[in-house]
Amino acid sequence: MNQEMLRTHPRKPFFDLDQLTACLAACTECADTCTICADACLSEEKVQMLTKCIRFDLDCADICSTTARVLSRQTEPNAQLMLMQLESCATACRLCADECQSHAEMHRHCRVCAESCRNCEQRCRDLISSMPGITGRK
Amino acid sequence: MNQEMLRTHPRKPFFDLDQLTACLAACTECADTCTICADACLSEEKVQMLTKCIRFDLDCADICSTTARVLSRQTEPNAQLMLMQLESCATACRLCADECQSHAEMHRHCRVCAESCRNCEQRCRDLISSMPGITGRK
Amino acid sequence: MNQEMLRTHPRKPFFDLDQLTACLAACTECADTCTICADACLSEEKVQMLTKCIRFDLDCADICSTTARVLSRQTEPNAQLMLMQLESCATACRLCADECQSHAEMHRHCRVCAESCRNCEQRCRDLISSMPGITGRK
Amino acid sequence: MNQEMLRTHPRKPFFDLDQLTACLAACTECADTCTICADACLSEEKVQMLTKCIRFDLDCADICSTTARVLSRQTEPNAQLMLMQLESCATACRLCADECQSHAEMHRHCRVCAESCRNCEQRCRDLISSMPGITGRK
Repeated sequence: MNQEMLRTHPRKPFFDLDQLTACLAACTECADTCTICADACLSEEKVQMLTKCIRFDLDCADICSTTARVLSRQTEPNAQLMLMQLESCATACRLCADECQSHAEMHRHCRVCAESCRNCEQRCRDLISSMPGITGRK
Repeated sequence: MNQEMLRTHPRKPFFDLDQLTACLAACTECADTCTICADACLSEEKVQMLTKCIRFDLDCADICSTTARVLSRQTEPNAQLMLMQLESCATACRLCADECQSHAEMHRHCRVCAESCRNCEQRCRDLISSMPGITGRK
Repeated sequence: MNQEMLRTHPRKPFFDLDQLTACLAACTECADTCTICADACLSEEKVQMLTKCIRFDLDCADICSTTARVLSRQTEPNAQLMLMQLESCATACRLCADECQSHAEMHRHCRVCAESCRNCEQRCRDLISSMPGITGRK
Repeated sequence: MNQEMLRTHPRKPFFDLDQLTACLAACTECADTCTICADACLSEEKVQMLTKCIRFDLDCADICSTTARVLSRQTEPNAQLMLMQLESCATACRLCADECQSHAEMHRHCRVCAESCRNCEQRCRDLISSMPGITGRK
């Protein structure tokens, strides 16, 4: 649906349409997954062990949602702002993936969430790499 | 992915899993679609004709996102709050669908957005109807 | 600042300006307070006792933020949608206030948060009461 | 209220409390102001001239809200993620301030919004400068 919407937009997207659509879908999915993972952690008996995971889930959900909104807008896009928000999003995803991974053996929601975060990090980095003449932060 | 996440949640969902998953997917898609439609309208030459559409798109995107978050949480759910937020979401979708529909001939993004809103309204109403002993607002 | 912004808006607000400003300020404050309360609960040793509180804090923060956005927009406002979102917001605030109140002896952040939620509930109900010819849900 | 909430938090804030409170207040105010400015622009007769302003307002509102949420959380904070989100927020505020400034003669809401964005940019940069051993992006 996103791809159909972006095709009907009067302006051509700033990014390659397939890469952009993949990144938007990944951000949206990751935001949803992190919201559910935070809540699933909250319902675990040993929630005390999962407070760092919940915190990163909440940050990652908020940042992914906002990044998707910024990238969705094609009217007068600003490359520097998109780059910075993509970098913040890739970092949020990496941190959340690492933390979730450490609970993946115990909690299947953390394992699924880690995958979703890794995918979103990669899609963000793909867009960053596609930006000509702009050097991303390491 | 949402369905997989909800299955791994330590608590059984308050709603039927298939209906809940369909509603969450519809809310998320509608939020994304409305964000792009608002921005596409902003890039149209005759943006002056589309200000009501942009306003309803923005409201609908915000309300769908928040409704998805509230419904995603299975820890200590409150039926009355979910009902009220679902009703607000169904109303936002109906208003946005009607407005988008009126521009559907001219703007294909409005046509696609209207479909997405109608689908989301229906999914919200399906969940509302499934709530036993709770009478929804007309 | 909100009042100054609303005064400079080309359209006259749908609501009484003072009541609207008070409600917007209350929603914004309540959203911030609930976000901090959820996180403070997460750092408490007995987080297990506070999972319902965290859940209501997160719902209330999301709903207050979205309600503030919907009410801030004066372009083509829709009375029914504003009413429904205000009712959902008042309910979220009441539930969160009640839950926070029950931890107020133990945790000062819950006590402060309960006050903030009660204030926001009241400001939402003030706006609802001011809507002529529209009967709010009990 | 934010300062009172942060004082009652079981963990000491990562940042200086006064600087953090000032930044949170600035982000929240800027988000609200940008939401109203976008909507006020939408109600102007010459909305066509203001589409870039609306776009930056919407981005800035979303990014400020998310940045405030990330900074509000004191449980297991991550310095690198906070830095990146602060940089993105400072950039969003700078771009929005510059664009609003260019309409400040014509539209008082743009003038007030530009002030709010400049203040928020400065508060973000103050927090960035206070981070020891971390070099911000230029």
